Amino acid sequence: MKNEISNNRMTDPTLTVLKADGTPLGNQEVVIGQTQHKFLFGTAAFDLVPLTNGGYEGEKQEQAEQRAAKLTALFNAATLPFYWARFEPQRGKPLIEETKHAAQWCRERGLTVKGHPLCWHTLTADWLLSMSSPEILQAQIARIKRDVSAFRGLIDMWDVINEAVIMPIFDQRSSPVDKYDNGITRLCKATGRINLIKALFEATRAENPSATLLINDFDVSPAYDILVEGCLEAGIKIDVIGIQSHMHQGYWGVEKTLKILDQFTRFNLPIHFTETTLVSGHLMSPEIIDLNDYQVDEWPTTPEGEDRQAEEAILHYKTLFAHPLVEGITWWDMSDGGWLNAPAGLIRKDGSSKPAYEELVKLVKGEWWTSPTKFSTNGQGEIQFNGCFGDYELFYQGKRKPFSLRRENAPAVQICL
Amino acid sequence: MKNEISNNRMTDPTLTVLKADGTPLGNQEVVIGQTQHKFLFGTAAFDLVPLTNGGYEGEKQEQAEQRAAKLTALFNAATLPFYWARFEPQRGKPLIEETKHAAQWCRERGLTVKGHPLCWHTLTADWLLSMSSPEILQAQIARIKRDVSAFRGLIDMWDVINEAVIMPIFDQRSSPVDKYDNGITRLCKATGRINLIKALFEATRAENPSATLLINDFDVSPAYDILVEGCLEAGIKIDVIGIQSHMHQGYWGVEKTLKILDQFTRFNLPIHFTETTLVSGHLMSPEIIDLNDYQVDEWPTTPEGEDRQAEEAILHYKTLFAHPLVEGITWWDMSDGGWLNAPAGLIRKDGSSKPAYEELVKLVKGEWWTSPTKFSTNGQGEIQFNGCFGDYELFYQGKRKPFSLRRENAPAVQICL
Repeated sequence: MKNEISNNRMTDPTLTVLKADGTPLGNQEVVIGQTQHKFLFGTAAFDLVPLTNGGYEGEKQEQAEQRAAKLTALFNAATLPFYWARFEPQRGKPLIEETKHAAQWCRERGLTVKGHPLCWHTLTADWLLSMSSPEILQAQIARIKRDVSAFRGLIDMWDVINEAVIMPIFDQRSSPVDKYDNGITRLCKATGRINLIKALFEATRAENPSATLLINDFDVSPAYDILVEGCLEAGIKIDVIGIQSHMHQGYWGVEKTLKILDQFTRFNLPIHFTETTLVSGHLMSPEIIDLNDYQVDEWPTTPEGEDRQAEEAILHYKTLFAHPLVEGITWWDMSDGGWLNAPAGLIRKDGSSKPAYEELVKLVKGEWWTSPTKFSTNGQGEIQFNGCFGDYELFYQGKRKPFSLRRENAPAVQICL
Repeated sequence: MKNEISNNRMTDPTLTVLKADGTPLGNQEVVIGQTQHKFLFGTAAFDLVPLTNGGYEGEKQEQAEQRAAKLTALFNAATLPFYWARFEPQRGKPLIEETKHAAQWCRERGLTVKGHPLCWHTLTADWLLSMSSPEILQAQIARIKRDVSAFRGLIDMWDVINEAVIMPIFDQRSSPVDKYDNGITRLCKATGRINLIKALFEATRAENPSATLLINDFDVSPAYDILVEGCLEAGIKIDVIGIQSHMHQGYWGVEKTLKILDQFTRFNLPIHFTETTLVSGHLMSPEIIDLNDYQVDEWPTTPEGEDRQAEEAILHYKTLFAHPLVEGITWWDMSDGGWLNAPAGLIRKDGSSKPAYEELVKLVKGEWWTSPTKFSTNGQGEIQFNGCFGDYELFYQGKRKPFSLRRENAPAVQICL
């Protein structure tokens, strides 16, 4: 894995430092430090919406600020919620301003923001149910146009469709928890998956041509692989294949993870692991098919569970970071007690960090990161550098020069003071 | 179910019998009998290749003839084998003549013949393994052109591709039985499923434009539904969706069968149940994923198993015959001891009929069939008729007039003596 990380994520260019007059800065000491990863290390940051809109008070506010500080200390990407049922519970009154505050907060702190999701059968607007399929489609497209355009520049990355594999059959699945009839399942049944995806991608693209558009699914069977192939053959421009990995029933392990990656590798498209969960308590039993069917009042984090979670997190992140096509990993719940009340956070309910948080910091801001470090140029002003793709800054006698390491500019980078 | 069968499979036209001079044959007695079902009731008739090529002798020959007689007594369709490994074990020496004898035998007895399959990763030619992917594709297309053109007029129905859902990942599946590397999996991995299917359908169509072309799969999950959608969106003209139903692990039941049918109904394409198996012995255990992994020396038929098989066969055939889009059902093994050595036949190893055979005869050539029956015309030469779609003959004073009942010509049919 170390070799693959080195080959796929790191670069060793010759940096040439030039003085303002264009001559080499020979035999001088400079300091270089990293400011940003190109790789997206993200988390679901739903907490930021109340935080940035006066939703917390007193101690709660303080705790939320501490969680946010831990978020920005580790991550450079955030997923913000656009679940239609919550974003626009009353038709015509979307939470655009509230969500903008959270997005702005992220952008000010250098986080790339993704909106999640534009279309999904779960948590969709109840008021679609009174409409015909063409009306639902019209409302869905109008919603996309409004929101994608409102957030252009703040949010330039979208999960356009979520869980399309089961979308048209969602209401039929047998499950202890009642599968509800909903407008999006009805729509998808009427249009077919590919036609719907095409319409959604085209609408999103039209409102924000430079945005990064994802298809996202929890299904990692051939069904999803075939759906992606069908979409691409139908001419749909998918920028990134999004793969969920909610491992409440246990860590997949390296072999399964690589096998899944293998299945999508032939498309030669970037892959994001969009929703990663590893719990630090007991595992959900394996026979449960829809994770939402597991409803518990208490799901405690345990010391052994936290050690396991940390080990698995390290392995999962290393496996994915090593793969040439993976360009982002989103850890789903920052804190315990989120989705399914699971101990799926990097932070406990009391705000303290779990071992998994510390271990990810050690990787993302340690092993894979260049802290400010002294370098000496040679007579030609050159430095042999080695670091992950990302943004950097060079300091020399109080001057600060930012530069970027990208696959495109390797093997030589000029930095002019 | 009775209502659906009546609505979807039967017609009640007014037959008007005219004399040679065009005037009505008033108040006369005629006899009408059915000669053919429009619905395809088929079976895998691999046995016919040795039978029609001197492959049997003495008692064996007699037994094979008895089996063949039972076949034609019940069925009007036959699937003949084109497994590449067996059809052309040595490159350039295909069994065209031998297979033609079997196809001719079928056609002479009014059976519709389907060739199975033109492309499949299992039982494919070993000699593909020395080729590059473009060469494999070229060989596969050449094979299609040669065989489809050689059998044009004899075989006008083809399983163009078999089991494409797992085709590109077949060699990776974990299983006690070694999954072998093969040329078709390699090819499908290189081209993608949809591109390959497109090339195969186009080649087949070019050689026999009026043929009925099927995609066929055992996968009945959303993966297959999505693959069909992807193919159709990519402009591939699929004539019939083929669904296997090898129920060695137990009868699906009506509910599951209808749910699967539901999944494919939105395409509004004809559906064939291409490979139906119900065993009359113990069931294969449910945890086996690839049925081929179950290898036994003995798998006896039992009296209780035969009763169960008969009941399930009735229910399965009624369920499918009632569905408006299903146009054919193929019972896989005519006799016991075929695939997997299973008691999956309608006939025991000793050639005697099982209850399932008798029950299917009662349906196909009884309840759903019009045996020669007397009718009296009214003064206008009219008969109120009711029967399944298919071919009929009317007898009057030694004259025989064939006519057909099709959805297109209902509600009125003229028969001129």
